[in-house]
Amino acid sequence: MAAPILTPQAEDFPRWYQDVIAKAELAENGPVRGTQVIRPTAWAIWERLQRELDDRIKAAGVDNVNFPLFIPQEFLSREAEHVEGFSPELAVVTIGGGKELEEPVVVRPTSETIINHYFSKWIQSYRDLPLLLNQWVNVVRWELRPRLFLRSTEFQWQEGHTCHASEADAHAFAIEILHNVYEETVRDVLAIPVLLGRKTERERFAGATFTWTLEGMMGDGKALQMGTSHELGQNFGRAFDTTYSTSEGTTDYVWQTSWGVSTRLIGGLIMSHGDDRGLRLPPAVAPTQCVVIVVKDGDGVGDAASALVEELKAGDVRVKLDGRSDIAFGRRSTDHELRGVPVRVEVGPRDLADGNVTVVRRDTGEKTSVPAAGAAKAVADALAAAQTALLDGARARLADGTTEVDSIEAAIEAAQTGFAVMPGALADDAGETALNNKSVSIRCLRRVDGSLPDAKDQVSDLVAVVARSY
Amino acid sequence: MAAPILTPQAEDFPRWYQDVIAKAELAENGPVRGTQVIRPTAWAIWERLQRELDDRIKAAGVDNVNFPLFIPQEFLSREAEHVEGFSPELAVVTIGGGKELEEPVVVRPTSETIINHYFSKWIQSYRDLPLLLNQWVNVVRWELRPRLFLRSTEFQWQEGHTCHASEADAHAFAIEILHNVYEETVRDVLAIPVLLGRKTERERFAGATFTWTLEGMMGDGKALQMGTSHELGQNFGRAFDTTYSTSEGTTDYVWQTSWGVSTRLIGGLIMSHGDDRGLRLPPAVAPTQCVVIVVKDGDGVGDAASALVEELKAGDVRVKLDGRSDIAFGRRSTDHELRGVPVRVEVGPRDLADGNVTVVRRDTGEKTSVPAAGAAKAVADALAAAQTALLDGARARLADGTTEVDSIEAAIEAAQTGFAVMPGALADDAGETALNNKSVSIRCLRRVDGSLPDAKDQVSDLVAVVARSY
Repeated sequence: MAAPILTPQAEDFPRWYQDVIAKAELAENGPVRGTQVIRPTAWAIWERLQRELDDRIKAAGVDNVNFPLFIPQEFLSREAEHVEGFSPELAVVTIGGGKELEEPVVVRPTSETIINHYFSKWIQSYRDLPLLLNQWVNVVRWELRPRLFLRSTEFQWQEGHTCHASEADAHAFAIEILHNVYEETVRDVLAIPVLLGRKTERERFAGATFTWTLEGMMGDGKALQMGTSHELGQNFGRAFDTTYSTSEGTTDYVWQTSWGVSTRLIGGLIMSHGDDRGLRLPPAVAPTQCVVIVVKDGDGVGDAASALVEELKAGDVRVKLDGRSDIAFGRRSTDHELRGVPVRVEVGPRDLADGNVTVVRRDTGEKTSVPAAGAAKAVADALAAAQTALLDGARARLADGTTEVDSIEAAIEAAQTGFAVMPGALADDAGETALNNKSVSIRCLRRVDGSLPDAKDQVSDLVAVVARSY
Repeated sequence: MAAPILTPQAEDFPRWYQDVIAKAELAENGPVRGTQVIRPTAWAIWERLQRELDDRIKAAGVDNVNFPLFIPQEFLSREAEHVEGFSPELAVVTIGGGKELEEPVVVRPTSETIINHYFSKWIQSYRDLPLLLNQWVNVVRWELRPRLFLRSTEFQWQEGHTCHASEADAHAFAIEILHNVYEETVRDVLAIPVLLGRKTERERFAGATFTWTLEGMMGDGKALQMGTSHELGQNFGRAFDTTYSTSEGTTDYVWQTSWGVSTRLIGGLIMSHGDDRGLRLPPAVAPTQCVVIVVKDGDGVGDAASALVEELKAGDVRVKLDGRSDIAFGRRSTDHELRGVPVRVEVGPRDLADGNVTVVRRDTGEKTSVPAAGAAKAVADALAAAQTALLDGARARLADGTTEVDSIEAAIEAAQTGFAVMPGALADDAGETALNNKSVSIRCLRRVDGSLPDAKDQVSDLVAVVARSY
């Protein structure tokens, strides 16, 4: 067996994270600070995740579009909170076509402003509402402390932008996206359980009236914000004069939402399921679900392995053959573990002489000897079991790592290793500042029973989930 | 019937093009000069086209990746022809995170330089070759005379970048992409026939040794370069020290290709098939292939229309129901024509009383009364026929619009309405300059029999295709 190549998680979790990204060839730093190169395996994960999200976004009645990367700097300044929030992070183009530009151009950090410029042209009456748009694009936010996938100067995401004829419609749609697109994909595809809730005023999106969030617990007990869905009220409508004539013949500003998830989800995937041997990819998102390994050459081994690969392909399993019998079996099998391939099938001469092959699950390490003729069925079963087990494991960690507390001090203490849940009454301005001073933050506000609060629920009636975070 | 809303093609083709893009709601100008907003219908066309191209790119063994948008300015300057070609078109970021940057950053106009920076790290030996990568991204080239889809400051494209162990391998791969990905997709999906050939030295990509091109003929007889596949020789290998150890133990620079198609293809689609009534979309790429129209309400009309829609959906036809009987039928039907929906089915009370509906093809205008029970089959047949007929029509225009000539003067004359094919001997530097002075260019060089030349074929042994172009 090869020597351990990753820093153990318990020793240094951030270092483990860097190691696994490098060794599994997921990504590298770009030459410009904070940018990143996403390599084939990670990009294949992203493509699969995109497809899952996009199908659900379209099922919600949303059309995809593409707005420009470049935004006139003046647009940003029209919404006061928005410009205050994003100004420190902007990349600005001042030279175009060899000439100094008369008006500097901002590289989009998010697209509320430029999209509202068009909403105001496209929307006349309540008959044009709701207007539901989404785009899959890159955005840029200048990042001083970059970390691959989690905080990068450029990242890939989808950003949805919608207009509605009432605050209630906008609220309902923001919550529909949160549940039916984000929570469902993250749970059923990435096998990550999340806590849903409302951001505090301090943590909400710059320009929003309410921000709804999904918070996942990573392997080190820290929180990762996996996605957000914002109610923008009429803030951008006012700033861009996005009005419509109501069914009663009056004129009003539209009610808006915006919502996004990004390549940060890949970071969450790594940190939710990875262990000291490397990645553990849920089968639903794994580019390769199963690898069939020729342990060493021998009577009929190659043929049996190839036949199984063909049978698995026919059953729509994403399978690869590893027939590199010139490389030591242990090294290859460690490498497939590192890369998180959910199931491997070992086909060797000794087992095969008895008519058997070995099916190994990456998530549990469990090895099962099965008749070669039943291997395809065993792989399918193992894939289904692994998908469920990864979610169950993450759920158990979330439950075990969450502590109810009744003071700020106890919340800070509990947040060193997991999540703290404290009464909303403690989550006033002073309480939040005391937490922030210890690098702990309120991840979200939710009802005591764990359900999603109403936009109108008072903070003091809710509980606050508190954690350190990425 | 509604009044004509588009400038007729014969009167002013460029104006017709602008009109159809605006009225069919395909795109709008962005607020920053030369940028564009791609609206739902056009983006849905692009998504379909992306899928078709991406499947073929993956079938060629290429992996998708994502490299950063921002490139250190210094990278561009390493390849002399490359920097000379792209410098006048660059957008430069000089401010990041509120501070003047020490080193200005270029917004990628194309990614050969930044990708070679990584190729040089990732490639050690001939065993690492070929290395075949592709990305779907936005690029920026500052555009002084922008035109929607055709020339825009920002555009969406795919750019493939590959490394090979020999010039012959690189050549073969560049040609494989040209044929199996680009020509096949453009022909079988967009229904556009193209002429393939080699660019002249003057027209080739900045930094390439050979550029292979697909040239389509638009409705006004002008050429549109639909895609290019470049052999880069060892130019970027040398500039970025991208070397590998050969199987003989020596060290050599890798041989490279790069190749791309862009949202410009949507412009080509519009100008290849559109007519004075609007778009004519080939069914293979149409977001909506069939619209079932309730002509006016009446006994069983709504039910019959809905039943047909369900039957078509079950047969995987992309179908929409137009039940807006409060809007005049003529207005709706003109609107579906404008938007290029390939087939419409009119369900009206009179016809239906006889058990019939009317199937109308957008490409020919042909109307057929068919029994309602057989309508789904009739729609499927009409879609297949329309796809073929659009390609046949475009082929006939290309053949009819191409004239063999034997002088520069005759080539210029013929290029006013179509393509001229002239002996390669005329395509020397003086000849090309004489053409360019009259806003005519050599689109490509090919063999007399129309086949693709070898990289080594002399210009004088070939023929030159000459045209005005977009």
